[in-house]
Amino acid sequence: MRMYDLIHKKKNGQALSTEEIEFFVRGVTSGEIPDSQIAALLMAVCLKNMDDREATDLTLSMLASGESADLSAIPGLKADKHSTGGVGDSTTPVVIPTVAACGLKVAKMSGRALGHTGGTIDKLESVPGTRTELSPEEFARVVNTVGAAVVGQTGTLCPADKKLYALRDFTATVENNALIASSIMSKKLASGADVIMLDVKYGSGAFIKDPEDARELARLMVKIGEGAGRRVGAIISSMDVPLGRAVGNALEMYEAADILCGNAEADKLEVCVALSAGMLSLADIAKGDEAKKMALDAINSGKAFDKLCEMLEAQGGDTSQLRDPSIRSYAPYKMELKAETEGYICSMNTEEIGLSEGMLGASRDSLDGKVDHLAGLEIIKKTGDKVSPADTVAILHSSRRELLEPAAKRLGKAITYSAEKPKLPPVIYATVGV
Amino acid sequence: MRMYDLIHKKKNGQALSTEEIEFFVRGVTSGEIPDSQIAALLMAVCLKNMDDREATDLTLSMLASGESADLSAIPGLKADKHSTGGVGDSTTPVVIPTVAACGLKVAKMSGRALGHTGGTIDKLESVPGTRTELSPEEFARVVNTVGAAVVGQTGTLCPADKKLYALRDFTATVENNALIASSIMSKKLASGADVIMLDVKYGSGAFIKDPEDARELARLMVKIGEGAGRRVGAIISSMDVPLGRAVGNALEMYEAADILCGNAEADKLEVCVALSAGMLSLADIAKGDEAKKMALDAINSGKAFDKLCEMLEAQGGDTSQLRDPSIRSYAPYKMELKAETEGYICSMNTEEIGLSEGMLGASRDSLDGKVDHLAGLEIIKKTGDKVSPADTVAILHSSRRELLEPAAKRLGKAITYSAEKPKLPPVIYATVGV
Repeated sequence: MRMYDLIHKKKNGQALSTEEIEFFVRGVTSGEIPDSQIAALLMAVCLKNMDDREATDLTLSMLASGESADLSAIPGLKADKHSTGGVGDSTTPVVIPTVAACGLKVAKMSGRALGHTGGTIDKLESVPGTRTELSPEEFARVVNTVGAAVVGQTGTLCPADKKLYALRDFTATVENNALIASSIMSKKLASGADVIMLDVKYGSGAFIKDPEDARELARLMVKIGEGAGRRVGAIISSMDVPLGRAVGNALEMYEAADILCGNAEADKLEVCVALSAGMLSLADIAKGDEAKKMALDAINSGKAFDKLCEMLEAQGGDTSQLRDPSIRSYAPYKMELKAETEGYICSMNTEEIGLSEGMLGASRDSLDGKVDHLAGLEIIKKTGDKVSPADTVAILHSSRRELLEPAAKRLGKAITYSAEKPKLPPVIYATVGV
Repeated sequence: MRMYDLIHKKKNGQALSTEEIEFFVRGVTSGEIPDSQIAALLMAVCLKNMDDREATDLTLSMLASGESADLSAIPGLKADKHSTGGVGDSTTPVVIPTVAACGLKVAKMSGRALGHTGGTIDKLESVPGTRTELSPEEFARVVNTVGAAVVGQTGTLCPADKKLYALRDFTATVENNALIASSIMSKKLASGADVIMLDVKYGSGAFIKDPEDARELARLMVKIGEGAGRRVGAIISSMDVPLGRAVGNALEMYEAADILCGNAEADKLEVCVALSAGMLSLADIAKGDEAKKMALDAINSGKAFDKLCEMLEAQGGDTSQLRDPSIRSYAPYKMELKAETEGYICSMNTEEIGLSEGMLGASRDSLDGKVDHLAGLEIIKKTGDKVSPADTVAILHSSRRELLEPAAKRLGKAITYSAEKPKLPPVIYATVGV
């Protein structure tokens, strides 16, 4: 088999065989295929696509390229969730304890923040003392006793995906559903969960702009997951409007605690309940409206909040600031961004909001970078809100005063105003596979 | 400017600006752009194409990436010809002396054989003593006194093309008209001729299979050449049937001499006359049927043959074997390939014929390899000929006996037979720009 022939075949729009895809992934993993040939194939895939069978083969080959988590020490169904990445979309600290409170075990592996999208691990670690580098035994013990645990991803999962992802990012070959789906699903499958609920984002803050493209990506990921023998579902949700009001690691954990204590932003609650209900449904614990009611009950009864604290404490966290808003830590420096004009907020570019957050110190430029857990921003006025120039639109937080001004400037440019009230998209556009 | 953005733009089907193409070619030449990004852009160009303006910009940028021949020491119009590569298509030794005999100067730079396509330089060097590494002064002197000279290409012409070509060959991104045309035309423009006549081949032995694709490539090359201020024309000719009967360096020189001495294969003569007439027409020496008649007269009068000998002798060659067939050298070992069956020769895969020729020692695997000038094959029966199993279809020649058998096997597989006489394509499919 020659890599040249695979490129030629895909360039002509033909499907690659299972053996050809395995050959490709093996060669990527071993380093035998030069970057130029990988890049040529990636571009050909972007422009000629892969069918569902090829995307499934690519996923399974990348899965086989590395280790998989061994969750055999945890009896019963294990659930996981994944967001394709947005801004301030920290549903995990709400969803995990909610489904755990309903009796569905969550064994979650999660990544750190890269670029402008937040990482669940960073958010959890903003709770003082929380450890996310658990040994496999410790991880299983917490899941078995508490019902939920979150650990950081190790480097040996899907090395082929790691290599391909870096090259895609470099060669403008990121945007293709087969490549995106196989990258996400290979890692999700490697983390070992039986039930996987996906939150596929679309809009200005997501890498997919069109909701129908997001629906197609969701369909493919569900299909791939089912082809691997897992139970997979997805919601398609909007990132045109920031979800909730908090953007930042500690700020988002505080918001999650508030949601679980009955002080919820409606949009974020809707997404959290939909994801939780989807997981309960895939696990056959409850279906449809019954599943939604069960999730809401877990939240309203306080059981989900207790479960969040229990999990964090089992991982070494001190939850006193989550329990008592009056003792919460905030960054020493703040700045208010005022509305530019009289009218309505017409759009907020959530990608730019995420980049502003990063400028405040909340994200890292490389995986070795340090994160300012207290940095971030509170969104006071959202898309569709009426404003006057006296109104504060957002409050920026940072541990370094000099970072506030440039971040505020960037944030200001991310917001547009209009005389008429803009039409807002539904928070949840569609549901797939549930 | 970032290479990433260029790739992204082309992936989305947008045209690259002149500045962007210059940035790309400069980065390729300097080595600053990594192969992976170059390969991704090349694949995007293959699948989204470049318009005429982009192809012209790419050509001119590649031309500017290296040196150009300085032909200022040769007064008047200088003509050149180029074949996109076929098998046994040595029209150069016929066309050059023909137009030179008609008063049009030829200052030709030519390449060596690579892969299965023959190189004019190798063919000329099969004439004992012929030197093709002339100094610029020597080259100008021969053209000015004889009217024609051929030199080997130097390495500093179009280094960007050299780099891109190697990468295209490796990443299955060869087949795109803009990339093919810019590669050919940048080198042709760098060799400095004012009049350029192209022979664009199509069919089983050429890299372009369809005649309309060849016509489109020819149109683009003519357009690029005109954009660079040169006079360019093209014929589209078939490589479905071998042109002439000789395949090999010395064998093709003997055939050229025979054609110029009135012993011509009709198909090869037709192509040679069309190319010669095209050059005369572009140079405004004669037009249409007048140009054809002038070319034919030069051949029939023996003036073209005299000019061939004069040129070779000026470059140090001993033409006695061309003048006297009875003293010609042949390879010491021969083998006859017999027809496999009763019927007609239905097809001859000329690419495979070229590869068989290479197996006999007539081509080199790398540019440093040695060439067996006497190796090659004589095609006795051609596509459309009636044959019986007793008939010799081809005679293989080699200086190494052990090469004959495997080459004959390959050649045998390149020929198919049919009960009915196959329909033959016209030798010349179309003419462009003349």
